[in-house]
Amino acid sequence: MRIDGVPYRTIWPTGDDGAVEVIDQTRLPHRFEVLRLSTLEDAAEAIERMVVRGAPLIGATAAYGVALAMRHDASDAGLAAAYDRLFRTRPTAVNLRWALDDLRTRLVPLAPSARAEAAWRRAAAICDEDVEVCRRIGEHGLAVFREIHARKGGGPLRVLTHCNAGWLATVDWGTALAPIYMAHDAGLPVEVWVDETRPRNQGASLTAWELGRHGIPHRVIADNVGGHLMQHGLVDLCIVGTDRTTARGDVCNKIGTYLKALAARANDVPFYVALPHTTIDWTVDDGIRDIPIEERDAR
Amino acid sequence: MRIDGVPYRTIWPTGDDGAVEVIDQTRLPHRFEVLRLSTLEDAAEAIERMVVRGAPLIGATAAYGVALAMRHDASDAGLAAAYDRLFRTRPTAVNLRWALDDLRTRLVPLAPSARAEAAWRRAAAICDEDVEVCRRIGEHGLAVFREIHARKGGGPLRVLTHCNAGWLATVDWGTALAPIYMAHDAGLPVEVWVDETRPRNQGASLTAWELGRHGIPHRVIADNVGGHLMQHGLVDLCIVGTDRTTARGDVCNKIGTYLKALAARANDVPFYVALPHTTIDWTVDDGIRDIPIEERDAR
Repeated sequence: MRIDGVPYRTIWPTGDDGAVEVIDQTRLPHRFEVLRLSTLEDAAEAIERMVVRGAPLIGATAAYGVALAMRHDASDAGLAAAYDRLFRTRPTAVNLRWALDDLRTRLVPLAPSARAEAAWRRAAAICDEDVEVCRRIGEHGLAVFREIHARKGGGPLRVLTHCNAGWLATVDWGTALAPIYMAHDAGLPVEVWVDETRPRNQGASLTAWELGRHGIPHRVIADNVGGHLMQHGLVDLCIVGTDRTTARGDVCNKIGTYLKALAARANDVPFYVALPHTTIDWTVDDGIRDIPIEERDAR
Repeated sequence: MRIDGVPYRTIWPTGDDGAVEVIDQTRLPHRFEVLRLSTLEDAAEAIERMVVRGAPLIGATAAYGVALAMRHDASDAGLAAAYDRLFRTRPTAVNLRWALDDLRTRLVPLAPSARAEAAWRRAAAICDEDVEVCRRIGEHGLAVFREIHARKGGGPLRVLTHCNAGWLATVDWGTALAPIYMAHDAGLPVEVWVDETRPRNQGASLTAWELGRHGIPHRVIADNVGGHLMQHGLVDLCIVGTDRTTARGDVCNKIGTYLKALAARANDVPFYVALPHTTIDWTVDDGIRDIPIEERDAR
């Protein structure tokens, strides 16, 4: 997406010196800063400190983290250590494991001397695939948005979203926000209710910033407000992302998503989850029992 | 209740100079300051600025506001002007209208020369009645708490509350928190989940302060968290106050209460509203259609 007219992704190789750069999301919305990741440890810390966040972007960063590690130590032990270090960064989003498993499966059969380049190429491919998957989510969602807008018969299409599942959470486009960008670009009069998303404020800090840069009408609301808006017919649909989705379809997403889903059901408001295949965890069924929920330091 | 061992109400006459004093709740939890109200305008502004808040305390402050006004101008016009000024301060809590109607009904038949003293006495009586009503809510709630705790068969009784319906919201004891204070004093091992209560943070700033001063175990949580806690069996009951309750029982309370009520129903968690008779509005039935919701300045 564009920032002040310049097209960006959230992560990109520098080209010359074999590093990658990311947008430092802990600085937004007040400052736009780019951070260079040169080592495995840089990548792991970027995920831990939430410099990068969002399930798909965590996966992409982990893939580049393996590639950076292979430059330094491409032995079997080096690969195992990189996997373990990155796997420990955050527990909930399954894209992390998905990307690490994908890289490991491809690198293990290769000679160590071939691993760095293969890892680098695969990380780039994972990013390109993520962009394409998100673009298609946008197209698919746009058709749904058009249908709901047609049924409404005029006026703005009011969409509520929780947390940030925009392009900042992916490599580009976003998941939940992809259809919103496409709808706006297609001339559909979309307006967005942006949940503040306490305690880390991803809605107020990231989603509002994204939408504002793209010129999409939006209002930040307290997380408490959504149910009241739905009771009064002011929400036409909800759409969110997901950290992990189980084989039977249980969706695990940012704390508070569940409350909005209950309110949507109680008020007959359509509720969508925009999910790329990389967030499905085919190994678990029960989202409440089997998905680990991250608890960050109380301070 | 006691603050550092000293018993307080939230509003009291100064005795000597015919003013009243209140705890300035905009300063909590960082500073404990007392503010003197000497005129009708002082009382009206205290309600508008949320120096005092909480449905029962708004009613009590309005009653004293009329009494202060009668000192200055006890004519029919003065009474009407005081009623109108106070009535305009905040729209949602019905106790305001209840107290103003109560005062006006009693004062209109009196000679103007008798109104100031009668208003003063009635305001004091309204405060005493509020304390007694809240005390009884506490006793009634304690019986409910004991029953739920016995059914649980041991361990802490975990109570979730939203906003502040404690003694700071009333003259003393509180509504939703009265049973919590009584349970704690009676040796029941009660623990409280305190919703932060965005956007004004009454939970984090007021409820946590109250409970802390009384030594009751509690944790402030983001408003988004309650549904997750209920899904995992970590909430034994919810209890909240109310700004206004309709004749058919619709409860209107701080934004976000509805989301917790839906989550409680979905997870079979008992959900209680602690309400004094003064918050029932017998003139309306439909809470969604007929209760005006306050919208404060966007800044």
